[in-house]
Amino acid sequence: MTGLVLTLDTMNPNIKRVEYAVRGPIVQRAMQLEKELQEGVKKPFTEVIKANIGDCHAMGQQPITFFRQVLALCSYPELLNDNKFPEDAKDRARRILQACGGGSIGAYSASQGIELVRQDVSRYIVRRDGGVPSNPDNIYLSTGASDAIATMLKLLVSGEGPTRTGVMISIPQYPLYSAALADLGAIQINYYLDESNNWSLAVGELRRALEAARKHCNPRALCVINPGNPTGQVQSRQCIEDVIRFAAEENLFLMADEVYQDNVYAEGCQFHSFKKVLFEMGPKYSEKVELASFHSTSKCYMGECGFRGGYMEVINLDPAVKAQLTKLVSVRLCPPVPGQALLDLVVNPPQPDEPSYSTFMNERTAVLAALAEKARMTEEILNKVPGIRCNPVQGAMYSFPQIQIPHKAIEEAKEKGQAPDMFYCMTLLDEMGICVVPGSGFGQRDGTYHFRMTILPPTDKLKIFLAKVKEFHQRFTERYS
Amino acid sequence: MTGLVLTLDTMNPNIKRVEYAVRGPIVQRAMQLEKELQEGVKKPFTEVIKANIGDCHAMGQQPITFFRQVLALCSYPELLNDNKFPEDAKDRARRILQACGGGSIGAYSASQGIELVRQDVSRYIVRRDGGVPSNPDNIYLSTGASDAIATMLKLLVSGEGPTRTGVMISIPQYPLYSAALADLGAIQINYYLDESNNWSLAVGELRRALEAARKHCNPRALCVINPGNPTGQVQSRQCIEDVIRFAAEENLFLMADEVYQDNVYAEGCQFHSFKKVLFEMGPKYSEKVELASFHSTSKCYMGECGFRGGYMEVINLDPAVKAQLTKLVSVRLCPPVPGQALLDLVVNPPQPDEPSYSTFMNERTAVLAALAEKARMTEEILNKVPGIRCNPVQGAMYSFPQIQIPHKAIEEAKEKGQAPDMFYCMTLLDEMGICVVPGSGFGQRDGTYHFRMTILPPTDKLKIFLAKVKEFHQRFTERYS
Ligand SMILES: Cc1ncc(COP(=O)(O)O)c(C=O)c1O
Ligand SMILES: Cc1ncc(COP(=O)(O)O)c(C=O)c1O
Repeated sequence: MTGLVLTLDTMNPNIKRVEYAVRGPIVQRAMQLEKELQEGVKKPFTEVIKANIGDCHAMGQQPITFFRQVLALCSYPELLNDNKFPEDAKDRARRILQACGGGSIGAYSASQGIELVRQDVSRYIVRRDGGVPSNPDNIYLSTGASDAIATMLKLLVSGEGPTRTGVMISIPQYPLYSAALADLGAIQINYYLDESNNWSLAVGELRRALEAARKHCNPRALCVINPGNPTGQVQSRQCIEDVIRFAAEENLFLMADEVYQDNVYAEGCQFHSFKKVLFEMGPKYSEKVELASFHSTSKCYMGECGFRGGYMEVINLDPAVKAQLTKLVSVRLCPPVPGQALLDLVVNPPQPDEPSYSTFMNERTAVLAALAEKARMTEEILNKVPGIRCNPVQGAMYSFPQIQIPHKAIEEAKEKGQAPDMFYCMTLLDEMGICVVPGSGFGQRDGTYHFRMTILPPTDKLKIFLAKVKEFHQRFTERYS
Repeated sequence: MTGLVLTLDTMNPNIKRVEYAVRGPIVQRAMQLEKELQEGVKKPFTEVIKANIGDCHAMGQQPITFFRQVLALCSYPELLNDNKFPEDAKDRARRILQACGGGSIGAYSASQGIELVRQDVSRYIVRRDGGVPSNPDNIYLSTGASDAIATMLKLLVSGEGPTRTGVMISIPQYPLYSAALADLGAIQINYYLDESNNWSLAVGELRRALEAARKHCNPRALCVINPGNPTGQVQSRQCIEDVIRFAAEENLFLMADEVYQDNVYAEGCQFHSFKKVLFEMGPKYSEKVELASFHSTSKCYMGECGFRGGYMEVINLDPAVKAQLTKLVSVRLCPPVPGQALLDLVVNPPQPDEPSYSTFMNERTAVLAALAEKARMTEEILNKVPGIRCNPVQGAMYSFPQIQIPHKAIEEAKEKGQAPDMFYCMTLLDEMGICVVPGSGFGQRDGTYHFRMTILPPTDKLKIFLAKVKEFHQRFTERYS
């Protein structure tokens, strides 16, 4: 008895089950090492290179000038009188401010998001999807994509015991999904991506997972991440069609996480939105399948994670449920307005006849070209290391290589009560100052081991990084052989 | 059978029970009326005056210049070379940027918030509370206060049936509380504020409510809003002591919502933080009572609602639970960084020897003086209307007057299936273009009727507003007599 009201024993048991590896013990340890280095403690390395989280600006990526100019103008409208700012930036700022209460980004917006921004999002989607219609009423702005994903999952969860809602997620997955499901006390249904086939998604595996789950819960939703995190694959149009057909047949609500929609690097790969494919499949599908798709300001070429901008588009959502959703989001008042303003710029960037266009295009192209180059380099170098195999990084910002861990190392990890890949990653961090996340944080087939790394470090650092991984893996393998 | 997966019947039943009146049907109707006016439809009024939500900038309040200068500098650091900005604003911006990943507010921060900002928050609390210590490790930055309040409640909820967590909230309340509890499936325990005694909080009533609740749930937390929303009272030091003693005796986790801590107008009233009083009561209390207190950038003199900045300080939280809290907030990655930057300025404003000090102080003082004047005016004018009685607006931004609704109007409302005060407010809106929220959205004693209005419209508009309320109330009373 501690005498405290709130203890591990009395707290919300669902929260205890939540896990979020991207910011777990490995990151804590990395921060400790950085502190020690700062304090002059000698280490076998002089800096910690972090590739644990998709945080572009933290890794040195520069913001898009135009976006930041408009945000500065919105923050301090006095600058509208300053002739150092291009006219198109000023126009954009005036337009956004006019759509804000009292002309200030310090006012609450409508809970669903500023109407003007939702209209611009809709127009963006129409352009992106080659003319498939989009209704601003179906757009909900959010506090990053995380918020919208968690909200949609929350709406879906009901029932108890064998009727409890089950939600299908890919394994490996982005751990927001497992965390949100644990929080909600929903049932997580794992379907495995096919590592031997570039992490593709096979309907046979979806069916296997669904049928097994139907014995103990009520599967109601299917989540897909495309381009994939942590796996970096880009789904083919055919695959997306198959998934949609499966969802229609099996009565599943589709959730499409498309926050990496601009991050496609591999030749022959192309981003297809679930929305577009759904509509191209004709009314039998487009009028029936319920779909929520998600986007964010955090990734793509802008990488503006700190602003927490994002949106969700809902398709075929029951109008009564939509009213409930609108009510639910109103409790939190509104998403951050600077993030909404930023999102507006992302979906409505400078046009060819505007003064900021060429700078904008140069900056955008440079970021995406550098990512493509780093994606290629990562695959190439890792695949030269005996005992490491990785699929091409077709898109997104990650590689999820499989690593051979010697039997003796697995034993040692077990003695320490650690997952073998956690033991591997901790050792990599301690010996090399390299911070990656163990595959167990994302899920993987039993008996296989991986880590996730981002491709975000600047090219020269990424080279050092990959060389160190190589050196370490060889040394680690020898040590435990 | 709709054939849809997600319907009113199959959705999360807790969400159906959520209510949030501040943005409910009355606001929808107000927006519709505004549209009609714009389209040239004739109405008995030429504009809708909205006093339904504490949204300062939307009502014309100007942002604090210094805050917005620093935010512009943080958004577009090129401006650091611009000699139009005062040096202290530049210093602050450099200091904040240095604390951000990659020197950009576009990077994710630590999930608990930027360490520098948490340190500044701690120092602010120490100053505010006359030297009572504060530890930055106990500070969690949040997406507005709403986020932190909902998160803390989530941690507290466990058990089923008679052991389900109950949470005590004041009636009238700010509806975030009832909404969050409904969402979590927790038991809401109402304690009534004493309207005949300036909406004060009496321990006898707390005890009554607690004992009644113990028969069917497990009461574990007590929420207090001070200064009060929607009731505008400021609690005396004695009252806070009594509440703390009660919480200690009854083993309740205390949640102190102090987002209006600078909004104190009435003579003889003063803001006392729960934290300060707790520590002044000595170790018997300060080492035992678990407390979470909440603050926000949305209210006070800055009124920056759109930035969604805020923090919570936790006291005596079980370290194991604290680790769980840190894990939980990491799932959403981080609060919006512009909001964190803004919060940093709020807790660390210009100092007397800095160039921005006098402008800052003038702006701050002007906002608070105007609010004080409007608080006084609101009370005075409303209390002159026969059939309306209101308590002094000692603090916060609201008045919650009691209104006499004639019997015949109550009957008519019932026929329409509306709460009588909803009927009253809808009629007020339709006939006068005045938008306030019915008391039933906040809770009130059975058989009494109220509405909540903000005191935020500019002074001249507020005068018109109050005159219209007066005219309407007389007309309404006659019509139904
Ligand atoms: C697949 C995926 N979805 C969603 C998110 C959430 O991003 P945010 O909340 O910053 O928009 C991330 C972040 O890394 C992600 O990788
Ligand atoms: C008492 C109280 N608490 C919390 C909040 C939430 O404010 P925010 O989430 O904007 O910080 C409000 C907003 O009106 C409030 O009145």
